[in-house]
Amino acid sequence: MAVKVAVAGATGYAGGELLRLLLAHPEVEIGALTAASSAGTLLGQHQAHLGPLSDRLVQETTAETLAGHDVVFLALPHGHSGEIAAQLGEGTLVIDLGADHRLTDSSAWERWYASEHAGTWPYGLPELPGARERLQGTARIAVPGCFPTGGSLALAPALAAELVLPEVTIVSVTGTSGAGKSLKPHLLGSEVMGSASAYGVGGTHRHTPEFVQNLSAVAGRAVSVSFTPVLAPMPRGILTTATAPLAEGVTLETVRATYEKAYGTEPFVSLLPDGAWPTTAATVGSNMVTMQVAVDSDAQRLVVVCALDNLTKGTAGGAVQSMNIALGLPETTGLPMTGVAP
Amino acid sequence: MAVKVAVAGATGYAGGELLRLLLAHPEVEIGALTAASSAGTLLGQHQAHLGPLSDRLVQETTAETLAGHDVVFLALPHGHSGEIAAQLGEGTLVIDLGADHRLTDSSAWERWYASEHAGTWPYGLPELPGARERLQGTARIAVPGCFPTGGSLALAPALAAELVLPEVTIVSVTGTSGAGKSLKPHLLGSEVMGSASAYGVGGTHRHTPEFVQNLSAVAGRAVSVSFTPVLAPMPRGILTTATAPLAEGVTLETVRATYEKAYGTEPFVSLLPDGAWPTTAATVGSNMVTMQVAVDSDAQRLVVVCALDNLTKGTAGGAVQSMNIALGLPETTGLPMTGVAP
Amino acid sequence: MAVKVAVAGATGYAGGELLRLLLAHPEVEIGALTAASSAGTLLGQHQAHLGPLSDRLVQETTAETLAGHDVVFLALPHGHSGEIAAQLGEGTLVIDLGADHRLTDSSAWERWYASEHAGTWPYGLPELPGARERLQGTARIAVPGCFPTGGSLALAPALAAELVLPEVTIVSVTGTSGAGKSLKPHLLGSEVMGSASAYGVGGTHRHTPEFVQNLSAVAGRAVSVSFTPVLAPMPRGILTTATAPLAEGVTLETVRATYEKAYGTEPFVSLLPDGAWPTTAATVGSNMVTMQVAVDSDAQRLVVVCALDNLTKGTAGGAVQSMNIALGLPETTGLPMTGVAP
Amino acid sequence: MAVKVAVAGATGYAGGELLRLLLAHPEVEIGALTAASSAGTLLGQHQAHLGPLSDRLVQETTAETLAGHDVVFLALPHGHSGEIAAQLGEGTLVIDLGADHRLTDSSAWERWYASEHAGTWPYGLPELPGARERLQGTARIAVPGCFPTGGSLALAPALAAELVLPEVTIVSVTGTSGAGKSLKPHLLGSEVMGSASAYGVGGTHRHTPEFVQNLSAVAGRAVSVSFTPVLAPMPRGILTTATAPLAEGVTLETVRATYEKAYGTEPFVSLLPDGAWPTTAATVGSNMVTMQVAVDSDAQRLVVVCALDNLTKGTAGGAVQSMNIALGLPETTGLPMTGVAP
Repeated sequence: MAVKVAVAGATGYAGGELLRLLLAHPEVEIGALTAASSAGTLLGQHQAHLGPLSDRLVQETTAETLAGHDVVFLALPHGHSGEIAAQLGEGTLVIDLGADHRLTDSSAWERWYASEHAGTWPYGLPELPGARERLQGTARIAVPGCFPTGGSLALAPALAAELVLPEVTIVSVTGTSGAGKSLKPHLLGSEVMGSASAYGVGGTHRHTPEFVQNLSAVAGRAVSVSFTPVLAPMPRGILTTATAPLAEGVTLETVRATYEKAYGTEPFVSLLPDGAWPTTAATVGSNMVTMQVAVDSDAQRLVVVCALDNLTKGTAGGAVQSMNIALGLPETTGLPMTGVAP
Repeated sequence: MAVKVAVAGATGYAGGELLRLLLAHPEVEIGALTAASSAGTLLGQHQAHLGPLSDRLVQETTAETLAGHDVVFLALPHGHSGEIAAQLGEGTLVIDLGADHRLTDSSAWERWYASEHAGTWPYGLPELPGARERLQGTARIAVPGCFPTGGSLALAPALAAELVLPEVTIVSVTGTSGAGKSLKPHLLGSEVMGSASAYGVGGTHRHTPEFVQNLSAVAGRAVSVSFTPVLAPMPRGILTTATAPLAEGVTLETVRATYEKAYGTEPFVSLLPDGAWPTTAATVGSNMVTMQVAVDSDAQRLVVVCALDNLTKGTAGGAVQSMNIALGLPETTGLPMTGVAP
Repeated sequence: MAVKVAVAGATGYAGGELLRLLLAHPEVEIGALTAASSAGTLLGQHQAHLGPLSDRLVQETTAETLAGHDVVFLALPHGHSGEIAAQLGEGTLVIDLGADHRLTDSSAWERWYASEHAGTWPYGLPELPGARERLQGTARIAVPGCFPTGGSLALAPALAAELVLPEVTIVSVTGTSGAGKSLKPHLLGSEVMGSASAYGVGGTHRHTPEFVQNLSAVAGRAVSVSFTPVLAPMPRGILTTATAPLAEGVTLETVRATYEKAYGTEPFVSLLPDGAWPTTAATVGSNMVTMQVAVDSDAQRLVVVCALDNLTKGTAGGAVQSMNIALGLPETTGLPMTGVAP
Repeated sequence: MAVKVAVAGATGYAGGELLRLLLAHPEVEIGALTAASSAGTLLGQHQAHLGPLSDRLVQETTAETLAGHDVVFLALPHGHSGEIAAQLGEGTLVIDLGADHRLTDSSAWERWYASEHAGTWPYGLPELPGARERLQGTARIAVPGCFPTGGSLALAPALAAELVLPEVTIVSVTGTSGAGKSLKPHLLGSEVMGSASAYGVGGTHRHTPEFVQNLSAVAGRAVSVSFTPVLAPMPRGILTTATAPLAEGVTLETVRATYEKAYGTEPFVSLLPDGAWPTTAATVGSNMVTMQVAVDSDAQRLVVVCALDNLTKGTAGGAVQSMNIALGLPETTGLPMTGVAP
């Protein structure tokens, strides 16, 4: 029997990607599609690429329209998921693509989001140690941020194995869809094309505490994180360069062995062969993270590069992967392992 | 029992797209992957986005390596398919993505390709009148060129119904992957990005006789075609603007009714709702052609705009669609109807 | 003594390009910079590329702030220039980059712009027959639209010499800056990149009557124009493909000779050597129009391709060129003849 | 009297940019244009954007064709400038855009370039301490690499003032023109567009020793540099994110004051106002470096972001700036301070 699924925020980029994946998911039946200001329009006006759903009516996002589904995905602005989840009850699997329930530390939430914390939900990054267990059978999932997905996976094995010191530097080059459909001047095509620019510099991006939380947990001690996102002229993709000082005596062989052990059986993390480097293009539309490691013996630093699609593995694909686990389905069900390239 | 499929030219863009689609095709088992100069390497070195096939060895393209398959796709330079097909025998379905067997007129072939004609095969554009019947059970298929796919579908209904005079103008804006992986200076990223340029101007592009053949056949009389391709800074997609002088008294209502009748039941042609216009982005990675019609009452011309992905519906997807028909499978098997956007 | 110049609409793309050119103009002193909603801010907040003006205050656009200048450029929304010009008097050269004063036919204005016509000003496309004379010493200039600039120059010589029939088809591929800084969803980088799309299809784009006016004037009879603009993923540039049925007996030699005669001495129109085709990239930031001609002997059509930068020759550069003429300065003063490529 | 200038390597990207700048330089007369395999062709076949030089013949690069000029720019592959310079004599100002004469340490040269060191020339980054003095009147100039230009300026003031520890991390996002016109598969437009990828990871990029040399010199002690370049889908531009651990007690105020003192009077370095961040688009075609600083008080790191055009300030503009100094011309002569945006 099909799993009946609703998507709140169906007209945005995350919602569109969710629907693209759910249309191809063999166990899912797509139910209510909801939004805020676009309620009452047809989905085709917002998601021209989703032909099979173009005539579906977009309803208003309320507890009523979302009721009666097995799974509800919330792709909403921050601060909206807690109240809706409370009305849906524990019989519904609620999967929040927003930030509300990612942080375990209420004071961190309050500092970064200047609002009351709505509580912590199991964190939907199955490749982190212990995460898969916490997702099995859960009724609530907090989907990770797009940047922490790649950056956490890039450094977790090295920190867990103490191959590096707990002072990491992460620069992530991202496509524009991560900013959503916001009508802001700097996101216009004319501004974006031909331009690279950093933002949230100096540790001010809201994904920073999520990095600290993930990496400190695997390291078993406080990890200092310097994170800088860079906007690049592409719709999708995140290319992360993560570095940290090597612990004494660590060699490339040790590093590779550690990463192969960590990810060798992971279906969605691909440690590339020697000499091959990740490109975001190869991951577009897929749920894959591709990764490569290097040791800079002059600077005595580990450098890890990883690529993913911010909308797929970084958001909607990660959400579906966690849904599969929570529902007891095979983890890879309905999730593309090939990118659309060139 | 799975259909065993080989792909010759597996390291190029058309071959890569074929393999992406075939990996998702439920009735297919992927057999030999072959190439010319890349024989002996691993596929992962050429198609980084096809993780599940990354360790597959690329063999040399010969009748031997291609033998023993139910279907052989040939994504080869012009002039190579005839000889190989002859060695494979009628028991193998041979699908040529090249131009060799598209033209019915040998003298047209000789004029445009300056070589001997290797014969005509059933033409793999099922949406043209009569095409589907010729594809059923065939052992040979000539896949259309990427430009004639969209441009022919854009004008066929109007010409068949004599809504326009047989003098058409077609301008097609194309992404760069249509040119393949050729190492030519004007295809470098530095040259392509931020630039639009026309080529094959003045009726010199080799797809021109294919347009003439398709459109004259549906019109039942000679159609004059002015075709200009324009290279735009995007990897995939063709946006075709096709116009022709209106026959007397033709209204937009007549035009829409004609196109709705022609394409209303076609799974891969979507006549968009009033007011919506095709974008190539919405078709990326899908097998869809999206289309819209307009009547210019001042200039008294029909204008049809259509979008498709040159590598999917324009090449590899069209090939798989025709394969499905030839093998008696449901026509839409394994073919994506949603694009990857944004 | 320097010419004192004000720019109204200084925070938009046209205004920014004007200022870039005026900063390099040896005879000009930049005076008031004005805008509507941005009044009171610094120019650097809007035009990050214009470092030397970053600390200049943006004033409100009023007759008062614009008074006391020799030249006033108006880069305003349609319908605003007439009233301001009336207050500035004939002692000020007013150059309107908007559409208000381009059309000579009031009923055409009323049909296309649904408002009262503010009168016709000398048309700032010096390369059209007779235009230069009308610009000398004028106090009012209507700068052409970006599309009619290229399309009119592409076809004028052929129509004037009756090499073609007066039924032309024009498809222009444009960069996104032509749409200005409007915050519209389809202009977001995420939507634009990787996508081509037509708009204003079916003769509905407002530049259509300007094409008709220009081409009918040079042809000496009514010219029918089918015009379709296509949005492509690049910030700047227009690549126009213009075709028309050849008059009987016209050869490529005649065409080339006609175009060489028409443009051989024009500083800003470059008829490319045989075999070379225009690219928009080569014109970025320059005031050049590059052009090439072809004869399609199968379809019996002339095909002309031309490239220009919509913001430079297509708007601000064309405006400065006309200013030079009006003021009696050498026509090329301060105008770049080289593009910024790659 | 004009300075007579020759350009060797006139058909490449660096050569093209040099010529664009030299055409606008009021003191320069452009003499011989030379190349290797393109000798005998016209420049217009290679540099379509340089209309005024399109009919100039490209000669072979030899000591003879380059003789008789006041200044000779060498935009050649590594290893070619020493021999030619030797033949030109000290009466000619030779400016090498290649790497041959940048490194002061012969063993570093040998390690990174696996060839004999041709000697060290005065280093053409005038904004570094002491550099301007060494350039005045010199007959030989080594133009910096495009990456070290921005990255060195980003960190030099902080290292000189001991605001940071000498362990720096630099990630530079670059446009594709930095790779030149090389016909390599990964530089094709189809591969580049929509993709970000790192290369030269793990401290293996040849600009690394140049960073170390520059930064150690200003710091007065050995600086460890972890440098990673990332290729992004844009033709021009470098966006550098440089970080280092803060020395104890250093505040943002101290940092800003230090950078204002270092660059306040530099014509080509612009420390942006509070809250403004560099974009590469704003620097395209200009000789500007735009910069902003931040202090991450959680991670206790300085973060400096800077943008420049790799072909202008990063190569050809930097070369002309140094030429101006060497010849005793005003340093800003002929160099654009405004970018071409959007």
